[in-house]
Amino acid sequence: MKGVILSIAPDAAIVDLVHTVPPQNIAAGAYLLGAVYRYFAKHTVHVVVVDPGVGTERAPIAVKSPLGTFVCPDNGLLSYVLADAGVRLEADPFSHGRVPLPENWTAIHLTNERYWLENVSTTFHGRDVFAPSAGFLAAGVDPFAMGKAVPGIEAFAVPVPLRRGREVIGQVLHIDHFGNLLTNIRETDLPPTPLTVTIEEHEIDGLSPHYQSGAGLIALMGSSGTLEIAVTNGNAARFLGAAVGADVRVTGSS
Amino acid sequence: MKGVILSIAPDAAIVDLVHTVPPQNIAAGAYLLGAVYRYFAKHTVHVVVVDPGVGTERAPIAVKSPLGTFVCPDNGLLSYVLADAGVRLEADPFSHGRVPLPENWTAIHLTNERYWLENVSTTFHGRDVFAPSAGFLAAGVDPFAMGKAVPGIEAFAVPVPLRRGREVIGQVLHIDHFGNLLTNIRETDLPPTPLTVTIEEHEIDGLSPHYQSGAGLIALMGSSGTLEIAVTNGNAARFLGAAVGADVRVTGSS
Amino acid sequence: MKGVILSIAPDAAIVDLVHTVPPQNIAAGAYLLGAVYRYFAKHTVHVVVVDPGVGTERAPIAVKSPLGTFVCPDNGLLSYVLADAGVRLEADPFSHGRVPLPENWTAIHLTNERYWLENVSTTFHGRDVFAPSAGFLAAGVDPFAMGKAVPGIEAFAVPVPLRRGREVIGQVLHIDHFGNLLTNIRETDLPPTPLTVTIEEHEIDGLSPHYQSGAGLIALMGSSGTLEIAVTNGNAARFLGAAVGADVRVTGSS
Repeated sequence: MKGVILSIAPDAAIVDLVHTVPPQNIAAGAYLLGAVYRYFAKHTVHVVVVDPGVGTERAPIAVKSPLGTFVCPDNGLLSYVLADAGVRLEADPFSHGRVPLPENWTAIHLTNERYWLENVSTTFHGRDVFAPSAGFLAAGVDPFAMGKAVPGIEAFAVPVPLRRGREVIGQVLHIDHFGNLLTNIRETDLPPTPLTVTIEEHEIDGLSPHYQSGAGLIALMGSSGTLEIAVTNGNAARFLGAAVGADVRVTGSS
Repeated sequence: MKGVILSIAPDAAIVDLVHTVPPQNIAAGAYLLGAVYRYFAKHTVHVVVVDPGVGTERAPIAVKSPLGTFVCPDNGLLSYVLADAGVRLEADPFSHGRVPLPENWTAIHLTNERYWLENVSTTFHGRDVFAPSAGFLAAGVDPFAMGKAVPGIEAFAVPVPLRRGREVIGQVLHIDHFGNLLTNIRETDLPPTPLTVTIEEHEIDGLSPHYQSGAGLIALMGSSGTLEIAVTNGNAARFLGAAVGADVRVTGSS
Repeated sequence: MKGVILSIAPDAAIVDLVHTVPPQNIAAGAYLLGAVYRYFAKHTVHVVVVDPGVGTERAPIAVKSPLGTFVCPDNGLLSYVLADAGVRLEADPFSHGRVPLPENWTAIHLTNERYWLENVSTTFHGRDVFAPSAGFLAAGVDPFAMGKAVPGIEAFAVPVPLRRGREVIGQVLHIDHFGNLLTNIRETDLPPTPLTVTIEEHEIDGLSPHYQSGAGLIALMGSSGTLEIAVTNGNAARFLGAAVGADVRVTGSS
């Protein structure tokens, strides 16, 4: 993919975002994109290929937005970026559907083969479709030359925390490389202190200021600005046997 | 290696091809190089270091060709690039030997220490010999300044499929990161449909258009243009217990 | 981190040094930095983040030296670079303490939030503090604008080999990706040949010229210029059950 991009846009600075997306895990790819895209300049072209449906009828798309340009399969990978722009699918957590585009966003269904490699395989559109399209976008080609605009794109339902009296119930959205559990509970969601965090029948008293500030299982506000569950110098996911989607309950004072 | 290259050629755009070559596996390194080099511009300098013989008498070489420039130990890493240029060792599959160079190719035995680091270790020629040589080539130094031309280089025998009536017998050349088995059987090798693919006593009926188009074990034409054996959302190599060199039989209609 | 650096210094050439530092292992990070920094141009800014104490009172620092510029937590990561400049903590092996700076070195305690991201997390200072500081240094900002100079920094005691008659006793400093054991015994430390190397009650007769020159357990002078213990085509650490800090004894002729 990098060879293809550099052949088309030789001055492009190419950065690998993540290599740790579990194969074909769209939710993990979407989460990791959502966690990092905002640290790049707005003119960046993000190529995001987690593509279990490669070769099926799922559409390749280019999405131009005030938050950046994204080239990816239309399979939900932009769910967290969309949520940042205020668009969320209302449905069962992590189930899929179509959502309208936020204002000032354009989505193009990439169909113009002039901007693809000559022989497109059925299995590696990252190289044959997404990389050359991204290269041409980085080189300044108008996305409208690459296909037709579409009114909406695919997303999965990003669960939002539920407040119930002095309790907040959120979910694990992602498990990182260190086994930390990353949730959807933001600082502003938290009930009044003192807090108790409950996950998989384990209770954690209070939030730690950082990873070294307790022994065993701890809860803290992580680098993405959301509640994380961690084990100091250990692996929380393995310790708890917890998976993406697991409930996390934060109980505050009454 | 990158520090050394950038010290010599500060404007070089360095791309990591693959980090997943199993240690000291020349056949895997050669396969992965063969799968990707063609997607880079022809003036690219490819530095390829899978080097179990580092410190022995195996020669460091620079090979200039119409397909690109390659800097590597002379140990067979260019076998698939050579095969693309029509040069193949005729011998038992994966056994080694010397082959003459294709037309318009030049191979230089790198012996001029002026283009190496000052203190060459016996164990890390990637950093001390190959990286600086590649840096100087990228910076425009004439390869003939770096050593003497040699008439032939090392290759291993790349197995070719055997056609026998309505049957083709090919081999697994490589197992990728997902556990897919990549073979040497090209589309043009296939007998008339309907097809049956046999590997390790498992039979697969017909080819799938893509990875999601069947349950369990499937066969499809992969991104390198050759027959692949895969398990939908799974690991075919583990499922079959198959290794590089395993026979794959495709039987067509009579 | 790369997005942050490129936003501030768009022309920076970013190189990943290593991705294989075990989480929170300062000694491994320090070793790997010490093994590679010298191969980069002296104007390079090295960002080194192995940071188990993130969010605690450990200081973020920028260190400008004739050997390069380093941006890192003040936790011992520069121990091997300091040793190269002649400064070593005298204490039990791998225990921590403070050391004065070598001549011509400047260390700045990074406190000026103008050079950080706007919302600094408590857990990811790599992105929020170290990357933007490095970006501004690469873009030419004076380090003295970023905070106050400090007279000394943290280091751990790098063990030095002990010579006793015709014997040298050194230590394993690091275990690499291949399972090779890397020691602190340099060529100039070796007693007169013939040599016997003893580790974990295994004896090795003589040094091998390279990894392929013996069967089983071998000893050789490695690419960092120090004695290594390896298993030809195997994993020495697993074979011996040896860990960092293990004694390695070299006995010479009398």
